[in-house]
Amino acid sequence: MANNKLSTPKGTRDFSPEQMIKRNYIFSVIEKVFQHYGFMPVETPAMENLSTLMGKCGEEEDKLIFKILNSGNYLSKTNDKDLQNISLSKLSSDICEKGLIYDLTVPFARYVAQHRNDIIFPFKRYQIQPVWRADKPQKGRYREFYQCDVDIIGSNSLLNELELIQIIDDIFKDFNFNIVIKINNRKILAGVADAIGETDKFNDITVAIDKLEKIGSENVSNELIEKGISQDAINKLLPIINLSDSSVEKINKLKHFLKNSEIGLKGIEEAETIFDYLKYVNIKYEVELDLTLARGLNYYTGTIFEVKSKDVKMGSICGGGRYDDLTGIFGLKNVSGVGISFGADRIYDILNELNLFPDTTNITTQVLFVNFGEQEERYCLPLLAKVRKAGINAEIYPSSDKIKKQMSYADRKNIPYVVLIGKEEIDSNLLTVRNMDNGKQQKLNVDELINYLAKS
Amino acid sequence: MANNKLSTPKGTRDFSPEQMIKRNYIFSVIEKVFQHYGFMPVETPAMENLSTLMGKCGEEEDKLIFKILNSGNYLSKTNDKDLQNISLSKLSSDICEKGLIYDLTVPFARYVAQHRNDIIFPFKRYQIQPVWRADKPQKGRYREFYQCDVDIIGSNSLLNELELIQIIDDIFKDFNFNIVIKINNRKILAGVADAIGETDKFNDITVAIDKLEKIGSENVSNELIEKGISQDAINKLLPIINLSDSSVEKINKLKHFLKNSEIGLKGIEEAETIFDYLKYVNIKYEVELDLTLARGLNYYTGTIFEVKSKDVKMGSICGGGRYDDLTGIFGLKNVSGVGISFGADRIYDILNELNLFPDTTNITTQVLFVNFGEQEERYCLPLLAKVRKAGINAEIYPSSDKIKKQMSYADRKNIPYVVLIGKEEIDSNLLTVRNMDNGKQQKLNVDELINYLAKS
Repeated sequence: MANNKLSTPKGTRDFSPEQMIKRNYIFSVIEKVFQHYGFMPVETPAMENLSTLMGKCGEEEDKLIFKILNSGNYLSKTNDKDLQNISLSKLSSDICEKGLIYDLTVPFARYVAQHRNDIIFPFKRYQIQPVWRADKPQKGRYREFYQCDVDIIGSNSLLNELELIQIIDDIFKDFNFNIVIKINNRKILAGVADAIGETDKFNDITVAIDKLEKIGSENVSNELIEKGISQDAINKLLPIINLSDSSVEKINKLKHFLKNSEIGLKGIEEAETIFDYLKYVNIKYEVELDLTLARGLNYYTGTIFEVKSKDVKMGSICGGGRYDDLTGIFGLKNVSGVGISFGADRIYDILNELNLFPDTTNITTQVLFVNFGEQEERYCLPLLAKVRKAGINAEIYPSSDKIKKQMSYADRKNIPYVVLIGKEEIDSNLLTVRNMDNGKQQKLNVDELINYLAKS
Repeated sequence: MANNKLSTPKGTRDFSPEQMIKRNYIFSVIEKVFQHYGFMPVETPAMENLSTLMGKCGEEEDKLIFKILNSGNYLSKTNDKDLQNISLSKLSSDICEKGLIYDLTVPFARYVAQHRNDIIFPFKRYQIQPVWRADKPQKGRYREFYQCDVDIIGSNSLLNELELIQIIDDIFKDFNFNIVIKINNRKILAGVADAIGETDKFNDITVAIDKLEKIGSENVSNELIEKGISQDAINKLLPIINLSDSSVEKINKLKHFLKNSEIGLKGIEEAETIFDYLKYVNIKYEVELDLTLARGLNYYTGTIFEVKSKDVKMGSICGGGRYDDLTGIFGLKNVSGVGISFGADRIYDILNELNLFPDTTNITTQVLFVNFGEQEERYCLPLLAKVRKAGINAEIYPSSDKIKKQMSYADRKNIPYVVLIGKEEIDSNLLTVRNMDNGKQQKLNVDELINYLAKS
């Protein structure tokens, strides 16, 4: 097989050591903040039964699920008729029972329903795992990517919404780039649909206005007309969702606009409570009520969230919302939850672009013992073990190659110190330690070396 | 869907917060030791092209690969003839181009071959990821499980073998249970096949003696006879592989037995070098030359390793070996490597059985603020933010439920301290802090609380 044919599957990627260190930094910041708020880790399998996955997010989403061929005689459940008279979806449901997870929310709902008797409610969990989507790969969109989800389930208190906003704020304060936190409420959107006389078209309206930023008012109008929404309703809708006032003023105008919609007023009340809570905590980033924020997923019923970078043009880097009955589909009724998901890959791209990754060299090798030959290498072995036992990452070059080659290895791996042990060093029991940055050398015994490296 | 129908796919598992904390402890011990020896993390996708995966480990292994149905019109590459005249393997290769990874070694070989121009050789990498096998699930065998692989590639020095033994020793010293480290060398086994006059049957012989411990000498004999190996050869083979002397004595006897086999003597020399290296480092656990150790995988060519628990009956918990040409199949010739893989799931089971998990409660919530109502909760919010900012994991109960319910939540979640803030506390600006272990209460201001919790 020729070198140029080697690749990962379309839309998937390898991560080099350098990239891994950066990614692990992102996960560790996110995880630490989740833990500060009392959330605990959970993991679910990469694959779920298709009966768990399908029909939960929407038809479009179902198409993006990677299906796994049954093992063994995978055609045993099909019959000749299926194969002659082929229906793709019928056949695939016969030959595939499992799929790769599409997000972490549906597996989490299954987890909660399945383990309801062992779980302490309200249940605060986080989950950091890859998910897979058979999407068209493009810049910033991959077929395998990590989600970092944090949810609290079994509590309808709006304090949870506040805490999610605080979590977002804490995380991006750590990452140190500017964001705007957009919130909206699906009840407000339902109220708007009521108020313009199109209650039944709630879903079509949310799908259309979700695209406002991307395609503009005119195209949204056209889409709404296509969906059978009256021009009169559109004329009422657009000014409302395009309000450019402050969040407080928007709320005041909405109170008037939605005065006859019970659900709309409930949504307003929830948004007001959240903005009130925000007065009691010190948030760095702007929280904005954005009426064009709709979030496509069917299961959201209350507050919805989205975070965007202010410095880098990029899709949302965090999003989520409240779902009043997600576990209902798995037989556990009336359990409300709320959660958000951080997109680690997009955060990575932004930190890279803004050059904001910290200098995390502590996991790389601190010292390389140069290898001068059989005898010297045996002399090095117990010293090396002592250095490592002191918690210092250390290597010996595995063979006595040319010194130039060994030094170049240290250099390319950014190893800051090199230890040279030849006959002279063995006789004197003093090691020559070279600083790779400035080329300076000094003689130290092994305990001095450990102290020296522990400090540097 | 009824509750009792909810499940993860066969052979896969959910991990609860309690299990996750234990698992993360295992990964962190392993990762820290890998880093002490200068290994760096890499990650490859969960799926690879089937052309990468298939035909690398053996026929039996190929059958265990989970195949992923092509997305979109997955039948487009088949024709009627395929479907009428069904050949399962032909059809599955038409409708599936990708599979879930079976181990981390093959993706690593692909990675090295693909990125050869960016990699600094000798390349020391570790990889901790789940892998999937369509195996029959049973105790200790799952369809989704984590491997923790560490490999060095681009060096044929036996120092690398030594370091892997040191890594095993360091890791199990940390876990603190007794193991035996078994090594052997595929060249010795090839020499034995030479010496008994069955050079061509090398593979059949290794497959059979690999089962010695499980099925006993007689069954191994029968299997060897079935494979066409002469009784005479078997009579020479069994006494040799069943040698029960010390490793040094085995080596001496083998030198004589293999005196006419060049490859056999090379294997002996390698094993001797490793045992010589071991004199220079302080290893806690026994390293034993075990001639019945064969390792099934085709690609091993030199030293092979296996680790077993001495206290718990369980399959191998770590294994690996040297491969001289694994990347050759991907077009990168003559690059020798050596690596081992730790089975995190089996280590988990052993630590659990021996009750050796440390008390790692530091990531759980340290303090719960009880919620007495709207006003009190708003008073708590800035205090809570301050506590969290000090790095202390803290929660507020999200609604003003009955105190008993809130206390029970703290109790079940093992939260050690609870803060009670009612009217009196607000007026005095002193919080009531309750130790959940002994029920003792004291009054502290928020800074005193932070100091108190930071110390406890």
